[in-house]
Amino acid sequence: MELRNLKGTKDFLQGEQQLRVKIRNILEETFLRFSFMPLETPTICYYDLLASKYAGGSEILKEVYKLSDQGKRELGLRYDLTVPFAKVIGMNPNLSMPFKRYEIGKIFRDGPVKPGRSREFIQCDVDVAGVKSMIAEAELTSMAFEVFEELGLDVYISYNNRKLLFGLLSAIGVDDIMLNSTVLSLDKIEKIGWEGVKNELVEKEINMKIIDRLFEIINIQEKDTLLLFLKNFKSLLIKEGIEEIIELNDYLNELELLNRVKLNPFLARGLDIYTGTIYEIFLRDNSISSSIGGGGRYDNIIGGFLNNGNQYPAVGLSFGLDVIYEALIMKYDSKLDNTIDVLIIPLNTEKECLKIANELRKNGLCVDIDMSNRKLNKILNRANKNNIPYVIILGENEVLSNQVSIKIMDTGDIKRCDINEIRKTLYSLRSS
Amino acid sequence: MELRNLKGTKDFLQGEQQLRVKIRNILEETFLRFSFMPLETPTICYYDLLASKYAGGSEILKEVYKLSDQGKRELGLRYDLTVPFAKVIGMNPNLSMPFKRYEIGKIFRDGPVKPGRSREFIQCDVDVAGVKSMIAEAELTSMAFEVFEELGLDVYISYNNRKLLFGLLSAIGVDDIMLNSTVLSLDKIEKIGWEGVKNELVEKEINMKIIDRLFEIINIQEKDTLLLFLKNFKSLLIKEGIEEIIELNDYLNELELLNRVKLNPFLARGLDIYTGTIYEIFLRDNSISSSIGGGGRYDNIIGGFLNNGNQYPAVGLSFGLDVIYEALIMKYDSKLDNTIDVLIIPLNTEKECLKIANELRKNGLCVDIDMSNRKLNKILNRANKNNIPYVIILGENEVLSNQVSIKIMDTGDIKRCDINEIRKTLYSLRSS
Repeated sequence: MELRNLKGTKDFLQGEQQLRVKIRNILEETFLRFSFMPLETPTICYYDLLASKYAGGSEILKEVYKLSDQGKRELGLRYDLTVPFAKVIGMNPNLSMPFKRYEIGKIFRDGPVKPGRSREFIQCDVDVAGVKSMIAEAELTSMAFEVFEELGLDVYISYNNRKLLFGLLSAIGVDDIMLNSTVLSLDKIEKIGWEGVKNELVEKEINMKIIDRLFEIINIQEKDTLLLFLKNFKSLLIKEGIEEIIELNDYLNELELLNRVKLNPFLARGLDIYTGTIYEIFLRDNSISSSIGGGGRYDNIIGGFLNNGNQYPAVGLSFGLDVIYEALIMKYDSKLDNTIDVLIIPLNTEKECLKIANELRKNGLCVDIDMSNRKLNKILNRANKNNIPYVIILGENEVLSNQVSIKIMDTGDIKRCDINEIRKTLYSLRSS
Repeated sequence: MELRNLKGTKDFLQGEQQLRVKIRNILEETFLRFSFMPLETPTICYYDLLASKYAGGSEILKEVYKLSDQGKRELGLRYDLTVPFAKVIGMNPNLSMPFKRYEIGKIFRDGPVKPGRSREFIQCDVDVAGVKSMIAEAELTSMAFEVFEELGLDVYISYNNRKLLFGLLSAIGVDDIMLNSTVLSLDKIEKIGWEGVKNELVEKEINMKIIDRLFEIINIQEKDTLLLFLKNFKSLLIKEGIEEIIELNDYLNELELLNRVKLNPFLARGLDIYTGTIYEIFLRDNSISSSIGGGGRYDNIIGGFLNNGNQYPAVGLSFGLDVIYEALIMKYDSKLDNTIDVLIIPLNTEKECLKIANELRKNGLCVDIDMSNRKLNKILNRANKNNIPYVIILGENEVLSNQVSIKIMDTGDIKRCDINEIRKTLYSLRSS
């Protein structure tokens, strides 16, 4: 048997996984500061839930891993965290609205593998159901900037409104029949640039006058000028879209975030579910060209899905842990981010080392006891390579004399202290 | 379509999931203090990996969820974290030994659903490969006590050694052919008591003299007396087992843990993989009768599995997040453990509220903005029910006068302060 991983899946070891845990912790702590509460839903779902008409649609359904159990039930692995979110709302009619939750968990897609696209990946979703006001969008936007500031990644958010987008395309003459296809091409602006989009539209035989019109609009860089220009269209959809954008901008202005978001009237965001605001998050240095997070408002999904006569306006934001990990690893390299404070090397003094280690651990230090039985200089070299700051070598003499030597790896200095004062000595070394 | 979860799976909401996140954090922080590094392995594996002869064996294989992908590969969902651990060691020949890792992740078993046994659950495994010495067991034992102390659960550890167990059963006359079946009955001691075990053995037609002999041994409560008694047997296996137990006891004695572990010479621990020490962790108050964690030494698995001529002695400990959750929820009820510090209620002052909320969040507070549009007294009632300590009601007058009122929910008192000094005022309220 050959040892291997399925294509599109991967192991994350040591330094790599430490970074992933760190990302998860930052996301989680930020979500909590914005008062989103955790939710955990099952991975294995009834297939009919995943395939229901208000869920992901046929595009996604092709990529669902199907399975069955000993009871021959038709099951599938969840492919997103939105369907489970809607299910939880439906199954818990007493939940008080607005319902704010986050979920961090694995999702599965049996689709083509490409960079940034695996067969299983960790999704981090933050959603609020039960709020129509753009204040929900403002909260999510502000949270997104906070998340990436904590992560040390400089991002901007490209945003739009679906009402504006569809209203605009109709108003400048795109046939209803070409609407979706045009949107799909426009959705690639950030990836292939305007020239690329133009070529696609030409190939799709979109009228050159329409393409020129699109270009004219996209060339208006200044947000207010653009909104003024768009207001000239006599379309109810455009009007509603602009009103929502202005409400959101008003909030973002107060939060001093308006200059960090970019209104792109042709941002489409693939999925069909969105009804209002849509946004995508991009790295400012473009080191990853695809979006590293995104989301939008989907006011009809939960209600349609539950079909209980109630309305559930909802808006959410989704962070891809894997793509954030890719961005950070490019920036910081995958160096082992050492978390060990002290390495204790027993020279025939295992018992005493165990005792010392545990006392230090009870005081919050991360302590390793060497169990390799290697030569001392090999152990020290490895400790050095791993950036372990302090090493204690405990021989029988040290135990007898009650005196230990703490090696400060950084400088090579030795600090001697009483065996009962290791903790105190380490604290003073660490704070000096 | 009926909204439902598959039997044996479940959603964890709000307070429930907060508790689970807390358990995960405590486990993870403790693992790190003992210098175990994180690992993440894929959920979907090649089926031949899961079915290989050194993996879980036919008992477990019946319970593997099988699936295939668009490329018609034969795949399965992982049913434990040990097989992936062995795989990672095999695929990374440059890993330096000892290799200490923890993994926290979902595993899947298509087996019968009963209390404490779901179709998918979160396993938390800590293992070290490459150490023969009992110092590894001592570290794991000490870590287990630390974990449960942090969790606020009072536990004892029942332990044994496989060499001793099999040596002993042979020495008192159990036929080789009845060995496994006898072990399976003995394994139920903690669950069904000695009378139950006796009945099973009688049913299995084990000689009454042998059963009496088993009882004679189990009645020796005192650890040293027991070890002295066992030393009388002339069996190499028993001798080796006792030596390992004495080495481990020596370490545990130094750690002042010897009185918290219970040597049970008939503890078996189901799985066949173990070769030396085995242990199971039980709640002292017995509110859950099955073990809430366990593990042991499996010196032959990784080597046999990899078949590369190398030896990989290994020992591990496994914590069930779900059963720990059950234990804690029984103790503490599933009350919402509020994490929100401040609720801000806008009365036509959404923009100002967003700004205040974000400043407080940037300073580490968890802040919620009410978006329910409900009547004020309803919002306050809910805040009270949810144990939110401080509420700020921001009307237009407050904005104009630059003065806000902080309602201290506990006492009903009101503290007025300048709008720019909310943070300072909250800090002084919180620390008083």
